[in-house]
Amino acid sequence: ERWHRLESVTHGWIRVCLPHRAGEEMINATEVKMSQIVMPCHSNHRQELSVGQLLKWMDSTACLSAERHAGSPCVTASMDDIHFEHTISVGQVVNIKAKVNRAFNTSMEVGIQVSCEDLFSDRHWRVCHAYATFVTQRTNTGQKVILKPIIPHTQKEQVEYSLAAERRRVRMVHDDIIKDLLSHGSDQQGRCDGNRQLAAEKTRVESVELVLPPHANHQVNTFGGQIMAWMVNVAMIAASRLCQAHPTLRTIDMFTFRGPSQVGDRLLLRAIVNNAFKNSMEVGVRAEAYQEEGSNRHINSAFMTFEVLDNHGKPCTLPRIRPEPLEGERRFQEAIARKKIRLDRKYIISCKQSDIPLSVPWDPTNQVYLSYNNVSALKMLAARNCWRLSSEKDKVHLYTLEQKSMLSFRVQAEVHVPADRAFGLLIYKSTISKLTAHLNFYNVMTRFRASQKSLLAQC
Amino acid sequence: ERWHRLESVTHGWIRVCLPHRAGEEMINATEVKMSQIVMPCHSNHRQELSVGQLLKWMDSTACLSAERHAGSPCVTASMDDIHFEHTISVGQVVNIKAKVNRAFNTSMEVGIQVSCEDLFSDRHWRVCHAYATFVTQRTNTGQKVILKPIIPHTQKEQVEYSLAAERRRVRMVHDDIIKDLLSHGSDQQGRCDGNRQLAAEKTRVESVELVLPPHANHQVNTFGGQIMAWMVNVAMIAASRLCQAHPTLRTIDMFTFRGPSQVGDRLLLRAIVNNAFKNSMEVGVRAEAYQEEGSNRHINSAFMTFEVLDNHGKPCTLPRIRPEPLEGERRFQEAIARKKIRLDRKYIISCKQSDIPLSVPWDPTNQVYLSYNNVSALKMLAARNCWRLSSEKDKVHLYTLEQKSMLSFRVQAEVHVPADRAFGLLIYKSTISKLTAHLNFYNVMTRFRASQKSLLAQC
Amino acid sequence: ERWHRLESVTHGWIRVCLPHRAGEEMINATEVKMSQIVMPCHSNHRQELSVGQLLKWMDSTACLSAERHAGSPCVTASMDDIHFEHTISVGQVVNIKAKVNRAFNTSMEVGIQVSCEDLFSDRHWRVCHAYATFVTQRTNTGQKVILKPIIPHTQKEQVEYSLAAERRRVRMVHDDIIKDLLSHGSDQQGRCDGNRQLAAEKTRVESVELVLPPHANHQVNTFGGQIMAWMVNVAMIAASRLCQAHPTLRTIDMFTFRGPSQVGDRLLLRAIVNNAFKNSMEVGVRAEAYQEEGSNRHINSAFMTFEVLDNHGKPCTLPRIRPEPLEGERRFQEAIARKKIRLDRKYIISCKQSDIPLSVPWDPTNQVYLSYNNVSALKMLAARNCWRLSSEKDKVHLYTLEQKSMLSFRVQAEVHVPADRAFGLLIYKSTISKLTAHLNFYNVMTRFRASQKSLLAQC
Repeated sequence: ERWHRLESVTHGWIRVCLPHRAGEEMINATEVKMSQIVMPCHSNHRQELSVGQLLKWMDSTACLSAERHAGSPCVTASMDDIHFEHTISVGQVVNIKAKVNRAFNTSMEVGIQVSCEDLFSDRHWRVCHAYATFVTQRTNTGQKVILKPIIPHTQKEQVEYSLAAERRRVRMVHDDIIKDLLSHGSDQQGRCDGNRQLAAEKTRVESVELVLPPHANHQVNTFGGQIMAWMVNVAMIAASRLCQAHPTLRTIDMFTFRGPSQVGDRLLLRAIVNNAFKNSMEVGVRAEAYQEEGSNRHINSAFMTFEVLDNHGKPCTLPRIRPEPLEGERRFQEAIARKKIRLDRKYIISCKQSDIPLSVPWDPTNQVYLSYNNVSALKMLAARNCWRLSSEKDKVHLYTLEQKSMLSFRVQAEVHVPADRAFGLLIYKSTISKLTAHLNFYNVMTRFRASQKSLLAQC
Repeated sequence: ERWHRLESVTHGWIRVCLPHRAGEEMINATEVKMSQIVMPCHSNHRQELSVGQLLKWMDSTACLSAERHAGSPCVTASMDDIHFEHTISVGQVVNIKAKVNRAFNTSMEVGIQVSCEDLFSDRHWRVCHAYATFVTQRTNTGQKVILKPIIPHTQKEQVEYSLAAERRRVRMVHDDIIKDLLSHGSDQQGRCDGNRQLAAEKTRVESVELVLPPHANHQVNTFGGQIMAWMVNVAMIAASRLCQAHPTLRTIDMFTFRGPSQVGDRLLLRAIVNNAFKNSMEVGVRAEAYQEEGSNRHINSAFMTFEVLDNHGKPCTLPRIRPEPLEGERRFQEAIARKKIRLDRKYIISCKQSDIPLSVPWDPTNQVYLSYNNVSALKMLAARNCWRLSSEKDKVHLYTLEQKSMLSFRVQAEVHVPADRAFGLLIYKSTISKLTAHLNFYNVMTRFRASQKSLLAQC
Repeated sequence: ERWHRLESVTHGWIRVCLPHRAGEEMINATEVKMSQIVMPCHSNHRQELSVGQLLKWMDSTACLSAERHAGSPCVTASMDDIHFEHTISVGQVVNIKAKVNRAFNTSMEVGIQVSCEDLFSDRHWRVCHAYATFVTQRTNTGQKVILKPIIPHTQKEQVEYSLAAERRRVRMVHDDIIKDLLSHGSDQQGRCDGNRQLAAEKTRVESVELVLPPHANHQVNTFGGQIMAWMVNVAMIAASRLCQAHPTLRTIDMFTFRGPSQVGDRLLLRAIVNNAFKNSMEVGVRAEAYQEEGSNRHINSAFMTFEVLDNHGKPCTLPRIRPEPLEGERRFQEAIARKKIRLDRKYIISCKQSDIPLSVPWDPTNQVYLSYNNVSALKMLAARNCWRLSSEKDKVHLYTLEQKSMLSFRVQAEVHVPADRAFGLLIYKSTISKLTAHLNFYNVMTRFRASQKSLLAQC
């Protein structure tokens, strides 16, 4: 049974006093919009917007938003998982909105929303949304640029503001989590011994690009979106070689830029199909940079999944791949583990946020995602404005919220302590296996299925 | 009756001595040509050359012509009304010719002719012609670059040379004229209260572009054509939202660059449909620039008209627009007034220049255009070389020219005065209501319809 | 009879000691690869990759290979004849491989292989191969960058290494050879007096391009490939005007960059159809550069041949051209001579190299190509590793090689002389009429058709 774990978490809640402006929709000063008509020059040979071009626009819009907040040049540090829900055709309009959700010391989270607009039918639909991290560049004199904080105004902004901190934590432990998950998944089946196996070697692509001034911000740092666009191109070739058809890019896993790249760099791009499943394949891409002299610098590695769609938009069955020994075999197994992670993640995301699923099927490998999901749900719950004060004693407030078949409690206490002590309490010390623990500092709140007729009191 | 005003204007004529080279077609040293095959990368999704790309090519060709004369970097200052007579298809060839008609102190008028060539049928046709003003940039030490004069050689060049001065005057008072016309037109009807009204708000587009090195001349000033191309793009999206079809750009009203833009600028582009008429709509576009820090600078505002063509090339009926209160209402009314101006102008332009229409329907709002038209006609008349000296007395010459049903007179006197006094006499002091007055300094000339059997003597 | 000239050439052979690595395929450190999916933005209006874009990619890949060897910036000096065997469609993948074959003092020969890959059918085919010469740029302090030598590792590399020196000699005398050949061909027929003649004048194209930062390496020197792409564009327009159809570029004759071009240059491009034959036409293109001030500099002249293909890929019959007097007439005659050269060359190239044709039809005009071909054959023969030592006397070795119907001899002697004397002996003093003479310094080798039952002994 899928709904088998009910987490009851207890959290300390710190109130944030917001200037509340009822009814009025505030405009976030960092919001930047871009609208583009998709022309043939932006398209692939199927008359669809090439994902590379879309990534360039997304990165560019996000960068301008980050720079509007920072007041100084910024570069892309990372981009969270992106899932492309639709392709966009030539003649349609792409609308991109980016805004800074939260600023940390020298980094910011920028939220990016991409929607598509069909002018002939007046329909709009969501193409993808993404979270990018941008960092400020040091000044000419080598000084760090410290960011001023973002002050959220609307309820929605408040939610994003809170979640941004959570997402940042997940990002920071992302590599460790994936490594951990991969180590558990190394004994999995998945080898298909049928006849339709293509040697992975045959899909290997190597290509070079020279970074020129239009590829760089302020003629210095290469745009992250440009690098991604080049990576998508070689990945597309590798994927095509497996399926002998036109592949459609579905997801890009979270990636991090490991170092800067500049005008004059040569980017060496390498791609290979890591594994092919029934309806999708994973391509690994690596970007390195070098100058005329000097050694290669690792810039970025990304994992992309592709599907092949038939005329009805249904994914086709793909041929299997025969990995090379050693390294190829390792990539083959890791692709299986990453696929599992993607499936879990997709399940969580596909639940509409307003549903606030109480729990999801638990499994040692998915507890991080579960925790993250729970925190999201709690944050959203707390942000509702229909909480009713049930009792108050010694300045501890108990609020309740009744919704359909659920009853939620919130306990709130104002603590008068020096700021440094308060922050001390909030320091994040989670390890992966205890991710839920850190949540305690945030919310004092418990939720139950009312249908289970159990009620909690003690916090 | 349309032909109801016969203007008789009397002008002082200053002779220009030209080195005359009979029969020989001189090549203007500032002429620059560009020929481009229209490729898919230049096209919109209807396989037509995008107007944005065409504007970039036109501006680029004109800029090279201006710089050839100046011998130093130049930037686009303004572009007169452009009317696009045809669209151009992928695979056809665009031929652009630009040359400097006249140089003033630090500015020049560049004439641009665009024609299209169908390689399969050997046909050529005119797409548009435009007049751009370019100005020299100050040198590194901050000094102005003063232009050497253009010396016209052929009769045609002489005509353009004369007209260039007239067009310059019209440009200089352009804003005032339009303001004046708009103030008269504020009580006009034009509100359609039918059901098919779209809220103007729905067509609003906001988009941002980052100026990169390939968008700028010599890596400094953004090309005017590039800015226009971006403005056309957002205007196209706004127009599409009204008509839910693919709109075709028909005209761009005269616009002026209000300040320079540079590499590193972010251009904020905003467009909205101001008003929709039966077969055409007007879109207003505004471009502002900002750097990472500092406030927005107003770069350009333009008004563009779009049509929607059916399969037979006939314009379709458009839905009406419901303006927002206040600002939207103002733009709505002004669009009506501008439409009237465009219609008058189109009428004047559509008369073949060789016909030299004697007069056009007079109206308080169109006297500027009428005057302009009259001056043009007089200049062309004066530039003819079949004038016959009829009498001479006290160094005052009377010439006559007989053509078909017309008899024209020209009185010419050489005045020996110091140069500074001569220029003093020529100083332009016109107000809008007395625009015809200033013409008196230029020509002593009167024309009549001979068919009216009236003959003029007094000059 | 075609096989009428049997050349027996005697050559001095200098042994090169190579580190031999049996079986192992060495990877040349200068090899650079590029893979690109052909998108609509790279295509002409027939949905084929535009040759201009292909030349840009080829030049860019070759430049990166040259710079990898040089460790410093390089520019394109020349490109040998290119024959395009296939067109490439949108959606196909272009694979380009470039590597330095040999480095001379400050110049290198880079070999470029272009193949095309159809993803749907897994087919690969060769599009063209080209040899480019790149030269190092002086350092900021004006010093020449001297190249380290290339050390060939595999047999194939050894062959290319040897041939590179031969090709360099041919390049150096290329202009003289062509001039000589043209002077002999000036009395040829070829004038068609039919009615379907188009005045050459009608095909004349003049166009200008401004060199911007993305067109230049390191923001200084214009990419050779970019200049070629622009030249192809105007040539294409000129060709189209003759045939009133879409022409396909078949060959580009060897060309040399006569001077550098830089960011900020205006490139003046001129093209005209020189002559039209039954199924192909030759277009001459000239590129000049100028700055805002100063005179035009001649950058490049190229001759391109075009065909028009019908729906079955068969070349169509073209209308003839009527040249202008004097200059036009000269170009008309020269085009006939160049056509003859191309035909001879095509014949030689079409012989598979493994066949090593013993001789080709001799003719005063083709001896250069014949000699070149013979040297190639000898180099390849000598590079084989199945030579058998037949006798040795006084340190002179006689080797034999028996293959099918051929018996080859090789005589090898080690000469102990100071290096400067050895080089003195090798100095190249050929005149065009005695091109075979210089070969004597290189190989002592004679080959016969064994089927002719004649056997040679004297060397």
